[in-house]
Amino acid sequence: MIKKVRTGVLGVGRIGRLHAENIIFNLNNIAEIVSVSDTNYDSAKEWAKSNSIHEVYRDYRDVVNDPEIDAILICTSTETHAQISIEAARAGKHIFCEKPIDFDLNRINRVLDAVNEAGVKFQVGFNRRFDHNFSCLKKTVTEGKIGKTHIIKITSRDPAPPSIDYINTSGGMFLDMTIHDFDMARFLAESEIKEVYVSADVMIDPAIGHAGDVDTAVTVLKFENGVIGVIDNSRKASYGYDQRVEVFGSKGCVIADNDTTSKVTLSINEGVISDKPKYFFLERYKDSFITELGEFFNCIMNDKKPSVTGIDGLKSVVVGLAAKESYRIGKPVTIINA
Amino acid sequence: MIKKVRTGVLGVGRIGRLHAENIIFNLNNIAEIVSVSDTNYDSAKEWAKSNSIHEVYRDYRDVVNDPEIDAILICTSTETHAQISIEAARAGKHIFCEKPIDFDLNRINRVLDAVNEAGVKFQVGFNRRFDHNFSCLKKTVTEGKIGKTHIIKITSRDPAPPSIDYINTSGGMFLDMTIHDFDMARFLAESEIKEVYVSADVMIDPAIGHAGDVDTAVTVLKFENGVIGVIDNSRKASYGYDQRVEVFGSKGCVIADNDTTSKVTLSINEGVISDKPKYFFLERYKDSFITELGEFFNCIMNDKKPSVTGIDGLKSVVVGLAAKESYRIGKPVTIINA
Amino acid sequence: MIKKVRTGVLGVGRIGRLHAENIIFNLNNIAEIVSVSDTNYDSAKEWAKSNSIHEVYRDYRDVVNDPEIDAILICTSTETHAQISIEAARAGKHIFCEKPIDFDLNRINRVLDAVNEAGVKFQVGFNRRFDHNFSCLKKTVTEGKIGKTHIIKITSRDPAPPSIDYINTSGGMFLDMTIHDFDMARFLAESEIKEVYVSADVMIDPAIGHAGDVDTAVTVLKFENGVIGVIDNSRKASYGYDQRVEVFGSKGCVIADNDTTSKVTLSINEGVISDKPKYFFLERYKDSFITELGEFFNCIMNDKKPSVTGIDGLKSVVVGLAAKESYRIGKPVTIINA
Amino acid sequence: MIKKVRTGVLGVGRIGRLHAENIIFNLNNIAEIVSVSDTNYDSAKEWAKSNSIHEVYRDYRDVVNDPEIDAILICTSTETHAQISIEAARAGKHIFCEKPIDFDLNRINRVLDAVNEAGVKFQVGFNRRFDHNFSCLKKTVTEGKIGKTHIIKITSRDPAPPSIDYINTSGGMFLDMTIHDFDMARFLAESEIKEVYVSADVMIDPAIGHAGDVDTAVTVLKFENGVIGVIDNSRKASYGYDQRVEVFGSKGCVIADNDTTSKVTLSINEGVISDKPKYFFLERYKDSFITELGEFFNCIMNDKKPSVTGIDGLKSVVVGLAAKESYRIGKPVTIINA
Repeated sequence: MIKKVRTGVLGVGRIGRLHAENIIFNLNNIAEIVSVSDTNYDSAKEWAKSNSIHEVYRDYRDVVNDPEIDAILICTSTETHAQISIEAARAGKHIFCEKPIDFDLNRINRVLDAVNEAGVKFQVGFNRRFDHNFSCLKKTVTEGKIGKTHIIKITSRDPAPPSIDYINTSGGMFLDMTIHDFDMARFLAESEIKEVYVSADVMIDPAIGHAGDVDTAVTVLKFENGVIGVIDNSRKASYGYDQRVEVFGSKGCVIADNDTTSKVTLSINEGVISDKPKYFFLERYKDSFITELGEFFNCIMNDKKPSVTGIDGLKSVVVGLAAKESYRIGKPVTIINA
Repeated sequence: MIKKVRTGVLGVGRIGRLHAENIIFNLNNIAEIVSVSDTNYDSAKEWAKSNSIHEVYRDYRDVVNDPEIDAILICTSTETHAQISIEAARAGKHIFCEKPIDFDLNRINRVLDAVNEAGVKFQVGFNRRFDHNFSCLKKTVTEGKIGKTHIIKITSRDPAPPSIDYINTSGGMFLDMTIHDFDMARFLAESEIKEVYVSADVMIDPAIGHAGDVDTAVTVLKFENGVIGVIDNSRKASYGYDQRVEVFGSKGCVIADNDTTSKVTLSINEGVISDKPKYFFLERYKDSFITELGEFFNCIMNDKKPSVTGIDGLKSVVVGLAAKESYRIGKPVTIINA
Repeated sequence: MIKKVRTGVLGVGRIGRLHAENIIFNLNNIAEIVSVSDTNYDSAKEWAKSNSIHEVYRDYRDVVNDPEIDAILICTSTETHAQISIEAARAGKHIFCEKPIDFDLNRINRVLDAVNEAGVKFQVGFNRRFDHNFSCLKKTVTEGKIGKTHIIKITSRDPAPPSIDYINTSGGMFLDMTIHDFDMARFLAESEIKEVYVSADVMIDPAIGHAGDVDTAVTVLKFENGVIGVIDNSRKASYGYDQRVEVFGSKGCVIADNDTTSKVTLSINEGVISDKPKYFFLERYKDSFITELGEFFNCIMNDKKPSVTGIDGLKSVVVGLAAKESYRIGKPVTIINA
Repeated sequence: MIKKVRTGVLGVGRIGRLHAENIIFNLNNIAEIVSVSDTNYDSAKEWAKSNSIHEVYRDYRDVVNDPEIDAILICTSTETHAQISIEAARAGKHIFCEKPIDFDLNRINRVLDAVNEAGVKFQVGFNRRFDHNFSCLKKTVTEGKIGKTHIIKITSRDPAPPSIDYINTSGGMFLDMTIHDFDMARFLAESEIKEVYVSADVMIDPAIGHAGDVDTAVTVLKFENGVIGVIDNSRKASYGYDQRVEVFGSKGCVIADNDTTSKVTLSINEGVISDKPKYFFLERYKDSFITELGEFFNCIMNDKKPSVTGIDGLKSVVVGLAAKESYRIGKPVTIINA
């Protein structure tokens, strides 16, 4: 057993810094940051200095090929994930890769092959599985408290739409946002999706439509084991980040409601007023990011397989692409699971 | 203006008695029961006597053709609704007809024609529009508090499946149960449904499947005005009658949660325990039945058009039939609204 | 067993009419109104006519001495309760008496003596015991679900203060308002109060102080069985009628929260807004008035003792007077229970 | 402005370690631990090593007199707080002192004098003021949303009683537990308490009574500004750590409910089950401990007066002693505020 997992962080934009700071502040008993890399070198250098990280590189290969390093966090832009994953696997590094692995299924499969050959750990960043509410809900389902699952309902609405620039490269709503919900549905159903039907439209901002994307959708999923799933998405919930899940089964129903900043309620003549949902994913899923990295490092230290695998990364993209196709043709799309 | 609406009740099974007792106990300032009819004469006679109703007939025509009568409540079995409605309209009686009017669209249209020609009031028994929670929610939407509507979500689960005998004649789940949800969705969207997609299965009891019906369904609706609706149904929610509605729009979201018998909460070592939803539709929608009849009688007394019209009765059946077709073919079904 | 309880209603002001209409609309299977009396004869006559009550008297004795009458509801002004109760008891009538019986303990005791001698039923109008929330809470306590009771907490706040005229004759807040809470506390503790301490003040309207009363109070009760009770009162809760009860015991805690008009919640940028408590006692305790009269008539028909007795009427006044004394002297006041 | 506050921690039992770890993990951008002391040297040494703290002393004076040190956290046993505070003040160190400062009012006053003379910062450990729920509630009150405050209600119940050993030296429930509630009440009322009345008893464990303490109490407070406060305490709430506050005023009511571990609700045939309150103060008040230390260090860095002062430490003990006296004599006790 190694003492602390020596870690390199590739890409220190918003999500890379979040993971790095979680290691420094919350996981420093099991991991340490050896070095980071970012093509935006000066900004990375400044941030690293303020966090007492001394090794900063422009080229990710300087991190990936460092023999001092045990594990790599891939937080770079999506189109680089596959190539870096393959190189890191070949260098024998354990890999935590932000979602999605890629938009191209062949490239994802090449990553999974490289990881398998190298025998390294590979975890995809589906942090919501580690959220306190959803992991509690999952436990309730697994323990059989609602019997056999019949229907899974996910409400997933962002507080505000991303920039059009983001949408232009993100793969669109089904691949940048609903992908989390596809993974959550698979996680809860414990089965693969065999059919997807989408009803979607542009309701919030015509510019989103001009960019070829939608901003509002209802997606119906059929699972191999008979479970029916339904997801409703919006790019803009004016009251905050609306993240709820409900699982209905033969013996009952379990619901995870939104988190709020406080439990304070004000009763006045105008009504009884309580807190809105926490506003943004950084607040709402704060602890889940720590828990997911904790699992990653623990899997390395104890030689266990991460619970969120490369297959999970692959399947969520498969479903995302099928959802886009369903929207295009206006009919359900069948998915062939090997 | 007439003093009290002199009313005849056709069919005094469960729902007929409910309406009659609501008139006697709660609406006796605006309506009175003159006579009732039922093919099950002896049972009807006994019940009528205990409620001081003196005129009881075996043949509904004795009520319909009574010149003393202003209004008719049609609470007989579904296959008789159309014929009786037409006769009552021709006799100049105002008509309250339980849903569905019929399963055959041509026959429904003949009813609407007869009603139009006669110039009588015609209200269909979509009582849920008058429910305290859903009418409050509708008012919130109408007042613009959530802005422009984007998504309507309806959860509608019965506490226990009906008998197979009932299913054999009810037209199936989409026409006996979801029909209420189709009407609620139309009521809230203030638009017509142009496409229906159903994902459904038999999950609760194989006997329901053998009867040619399903017991679990997710239905997606597209409205002419762009709103997307989604309904999830189950024939069996083991925790009671689960009746929730959510409307999401550009400025916010309004949710009607389940009613409970009490506001009492018990905190013990095992958890914090509160009341289940009210168990059955008679408890849950108790007041809505009174309110809907009150509107019917008020429309008669003040010569106003009922808010739930024959068109509402027609459209809900159109959508129900399209839903069955969507389930059969596994694809969305388009609805042509004139 | 008699067919229906033939009832006379003395005093048809707000509460008398409420009870009468509950008999007419909701309890007409077990009771009927034979006659009513009111010193305000013309108004009573008009109201009675619209409810098809034909016998109306100016003098209550015409009702009390009518051999056709089984039961009397005393809804006249407080200072007449004792005298009428005694006369009605001597006439062999069963008595439902609004609270308080009287402000003078000797007079109350004479009423109880007369009732005992006559062997008639005597029920005092503590309707809250019959409220759906509080009776459910009481059942939870009685079933042992919270173990041995340690603390009882009652929040009882009116939506708006009564008129100064009312306060001048009501006996003050402890006898017109807190008296209900004293009865509720005794009901839940199943024991007698042995000490009362009051901390109170005039915070809402100086005119209330000039009338010799307070408008805000916290009252601590010690029961013979060791339970500690605490009541907080206000004459003015700007958000509605705040009526909550909490019982804490060795195994748990049970809380009855406020009723609301709907279960609708609006999530907007300003917050999550839900319904205020029902505004007034007529809405909040609507069903409890029906249930309490139902029990009264059932006790008569089945020769059972009412659960709310003359002793309950006496004890609540004893505690109310002790509370006033505690406020006057600024110290706890001991109560001697025989 | 100094770079980081160089801090010494005196006493590294449960609360000392909590504060130290909060500095290391959460406040390391504004503070650092230079050294710690504990009479239980070996255990302290071992814990310190695992947290990379290199200087460990048996004698607190080695820390207090270290010229490298800016601030001292006093987490030793209560009887040493006053003496150490005085020495630290004279050594020119800023002081964070756990509550209570002492049980003897003269000794507390000597501490306050020493602190004033030395001109150092002095903050008392009333962490609940920094709790997310209570600080939100306080803000609501301060912003005038409930108008003028009339009644403050605090429910404060521990999940399990402490050991009899602890009770023997803690000063009893009013000084080890209710002291937090006295401070919360003063914080919310923004006024001093002028009278205390206690109704209390031993209901949970006779051994607590043999130790001269109580385990269940209701305490009524009168404030100089007219506000009435009421606190209910229990040493044992079988469903967890029950920590609620309610403030009622002329325009409304604000309530802080318990925090829970998740927002998950299970609806099954047995009822609707949700999470209990968080079980223990370390979970419930986790973030408040970080926030309070953050304020302490910020006050030092920016030369501001801490919001929780030595006077707050004094007054809470004054009220605690008055509460004990009220329990002893069974009457309200007056407090003279200078």
